[in-house]
Amino acid sequence: MADALRRLKTILGEVTDIHRAGAVLDWDQETYMPPGGVHNRAEQLSTLSEVAHRRFTTDEVGKLLDEAAATTAKLPFDSDDASLVRVTRRDYDLARKLPPELVAEIAHASASARPHWQKARHEANFALFAPYLEKNVELNKRVAEALGYEKRPYDALLDRTEPGLTTDQLEAIFDELKAAIVPLVADIQRHADAIDDSVLHRGFDPDAQVRYALDTVTKLGYDLERGRQDISTHPFSTAFGPGDVRITTRVSRDFFNECLFGSIHEAGHGMYFQGIGRNLDRTPLWDGASPGVHESQSRLWENLVARSLPFWHHFFPSLRKAFPEPLKGVDVEAFYRSVNKSYPSFIRVEADEVTYNLHILLRFELENDMLEGKLKVADLPEAWNELFKSYVGLDVPNDREGVLQDIHWSFVGFAEFPGYTLGNIIGAQLMEKIRSELTDLDDQMERGEFGALLSWLQEHVYQHGRKFTPNELLERETGRPLTPKPWIAYVRKKYSALYGLKH
Amino acid sequence: MADALRRLKTILGEVTDIHRAGAVLDWDQETYMPPGGVHNRAEQLSTLSEVAHRRFTTDEVGKLLDEAAATTAKLPFDSDDASLVRVTRRDYDLARKLPPELVAEIAHASASARPHWQKARHEANFALFAPYLEKNVELNKRVAEALGYEKRPYDALLDRTEPGLTTDQLEAIFDELKAAIVPLVADIQRHADAIDDSVLHRGFDPDAQVRYALDTVTKLGYDLERGRQDISTHPFSTAFGPGDVRITTRVSRDFFNECLFGSIHEAGHGMYFQGIGRNLDRTPLWDGASPGVHESQSRLWENLVARSLPFWHHFFPSLRKAFPEPLKGVDVEAFYRSVNKSYPSFIRVEADEVTYNLHILLRFELENDMLEGKLKVADLPEAWNELFKSYVGLDVPNDREGVLQDIHWSFVGFAEFPGYTLGNIIGAQLMEKIRSELTDLDDQMERGEFGALLSWLQEHVYQHGRKFTPNELLERETGRPLTPKPWIAYVRKKYSALYGLKH
Repeated sequence: MADALRRLKTILGEVTDIHRAGAVLDWDQETYMPPGGVHNRAEQLSTLSEVAHRRFTTDEVGKLLDEAAATTAKLPFDSDDASLVRVTRRDYDLARKLPPELVAEIAHASASARPHWQKARHEANFALFAPYLEKNVELNKRVAEALGYEKRPYDALLDRTEPGLTTDQLEAIFDELKAAIVPLVADIQRHADAIDDSVLHRGFDPDAQVRYALDTVTKLGYDLERGRQDISTHPFSTAFGPGDVRITTRVSRDFFNECLFGSIHEAGHGMYFQGIGRNLDRTPLWDGASPGVHESQSRLWENLVARSLPFWHHFFPSLRKAFPEPLKGVDVEAFYRSVNKSYPSFIRVEADEVTYNLHILLRFELENDMLEGKLKVADLPEAWNELFKSYVGLDVPNDREGVLQDIHWSFVGFAEFPGYTLGNIIGAQLMEKIRSELTDLDDQMERGEFGALLSWLQEHVYQHGRKFTPNELLERETGRPLTPKPWIAYVRKKYSALYGLKH
Repeated sequence: MADALRRLKTILGEVTDIHRAGAVLDWDQETYMPPGGVHNRAEQLSTLSEVAHRRFTTDEVGKLLDEAAATTAKLPFDSDDASLVRVTRRDYDLARKLPPELVAEIAHASASARPHWQKARHEANFALFAPYLEKNVELNKRVAEALGYEKRPYDALLDRTEPGLTTDQLEAIFDELKAAIVPLVADIQRHADAIDDSVLHRGFDPDAQVRYALDTVTKLGYDLERGRQDISTHPFSTAFGPGDVRITTRVSRDFFNECLFGSIHEAGHGMYFQGIGRNLDRTPLWDGASPGVHESQSRLWENLVARSLPFWHHFFPSLRKAFPEPLKGVDVEAFYRSVNKSYPSFIRVEADEVTYNLHILLRFELENDMLEGKLKVADLPEAWNELFKSYVGLDVPNDREGVLQDIHWSFVGFAEFPGYTLGNIIGAQLMEKIRSELTDLDDQMERGEFGALLSWLQEHVYQHGRKFTPNELLERETGRPLTPKPWIAYVRKKYSALYGLKH
């Protein structure tokens, strides 16, 4: 029996190594690969992913999981071995439910759709992309059918990304959010003049920005012995094991927020990776609990920490030293207000803390409607523009700045968007708990001390890796299930103060 | 039958992809990997290499090779498919001859020996490394026995690196070389004052050196659309497919030769890789013909081209523009003489064009004697020092600058050293042929035109990949088998002129 567990771990270790090799190849593609490498790289990534999939989905792994389950049956729920068998069984069953032909068809459809999405976006012409999106919707439906669900097809997809969460629960949370944000956004708009953020556009030397960002994230706790920062078009974080967790950033001379907050966001993901227990290394447990929980850490460090006044009380003096020209005559309070300015905008990835979730709510509604057959692909742009007007209050000028902006629908991956908003919610829920324990957190941050915060997160979140579902983790560490209330309270309080609103 | 060939190519494509993924991981380890990544990286590389080996050595591949051989039996010797089956069969038989236990033991012994070799070298204490070298010698013997040989155990190892070459042939070639070089080196020493190379040590801005080197290799023909240059401790080249072939370099402010000639050397390997036919991509044929033939291209571009006077007639004006300070008062002739100064030295990788081969001859003799049981490991340092004195004329001061200097004997890889000298010989033999066809090559180089030279090499060497053994390639493209005569003639003529010798 113990032999089965050992053999299982050997196979899972190999599968992990192959996935990590693929992650190195992905990182290289986004940072240093010469243009000519695209074709060979696609072949290599496809082979690695096939080899890993083949190795993981054999009958042998199923048999070993059965046998290992007998060994771990009496172990505590949160023990390494019991968690390994439980979580791997879930992964295995999901992987086995998808017939190889469907997997191949999905890979092919995604690869085919991407250039058409790019062309359609470039020309702001949705019709060019529509047939491919129709195919992708159909494939999302077939995935949902193959995985199975009790009530709604979206349940099947959501359970894969955010295990344990149902579409009904998500809708209830999103409704609560919407009811709070839509009037708040409108209220902020009526007081838009309260914040002038022109300082962010005064021109900041790019090299100095990158250096300052790297210096800042190491002060927060991102470990450079086991990490590094490079430049890429779209910032991301990636991990090849506990000893090698990397982040990227981008930089714009004309907009300060991009580099520093981008780096801190990715370092949030990075510190999560760096904090996962080494006891879970080379197993499926060595990862974040879910995309939502992962995003909770990027957003916690980016927004709840680095967009707070105490944070800037500590960092602003060194920032002014690094950028004396553009920051001439600017004080810490004004700078804090600038980096928190909220304004309705068309592009999700550029949205501020308040309006961001509206972009997600809209996408969730639309992809769920398409999946449930309530919305035809042909009618999508109109539906997008209507919802956008009612949520954000703006008229979408064209499909490039509307329905074609995200890459996500060019591949078969519905149910990925909710994780971004869940991240905001979970981050705030954790922070509420943290502040009840670290009551002087603001004072610590003003002194540039982030060690207690990082330790709390390591102990209560990071070390567990994927042992728990998002809800299991929240119940265990905050005492209650997923709720948007802390985030709503946080954003209301912060923005009422910033804009002088009465909430 | 055609199905067998198709299926074989599918499997070989996957195996190639996995090897290339491993090469990306190696490249990353030498260039950007943070220190903490060592442990995880070793796991990943070991898994990739195991997975590729397992996939390649199945009974199925053997059966497919048998079936495919029937399909290709009537095709011309140099056709893609006949060559693929012929060369893959050789690889397959070699791989199958090594029992998995021996492969595992070798991996383990190499990994264990390395830190002890490092410590021994650091402390210049051979005794610390001796037990591990004894184990490695024994394993080299067992590899030779497992592979099989008719006459001498070194034959088995040499046939793996330089297929078709025997130890007797190699000894004859090396004897001819020795007879020519030893007196030449002594003669040069008597005229050592003829060249003053102090200009090379006058201080050259490192960033400018790296830029100049990259600019130079692109002018020679290294394609940056399908390549890039980075910095690493030990320069190397690596290829992940025809679209992505990379080089690295290193740079020293105080010694000019390191960066530029290092870059050109690696770009020689790189242009070879970039020139292999795309029709051979994702097969075992997509690689250099052998380490020796590969080295012939690095040495050809580094020495026969970039250490020639016509080369410097073209490049010296731009070099003087890039480094006006250190090159003040230096003319092209003096600079050409400086970069060609020959002097006996202890360290192989720093040796000049004339003395370099002596370092290799000595290593070959010693490892062959150990393999044949004529030399005990305990007696190795003494044997090294004696041979070194008689070849190079210097007394080795300690084992760090003697027998412990190379990493090669810390792993189980006898028969790798000869490739370095074969590279010099093959390069000169090819160049003799090239000059008989491109009779104005010197004029072309003076004008900065390297296109005809590169095209010749692409057509006659690069495009063929591994289709031919070194000797098959030389017979086919130069009309005669491997011979050291062109190299001896080249080096005699060049150095007689440089030092005013009578040869």
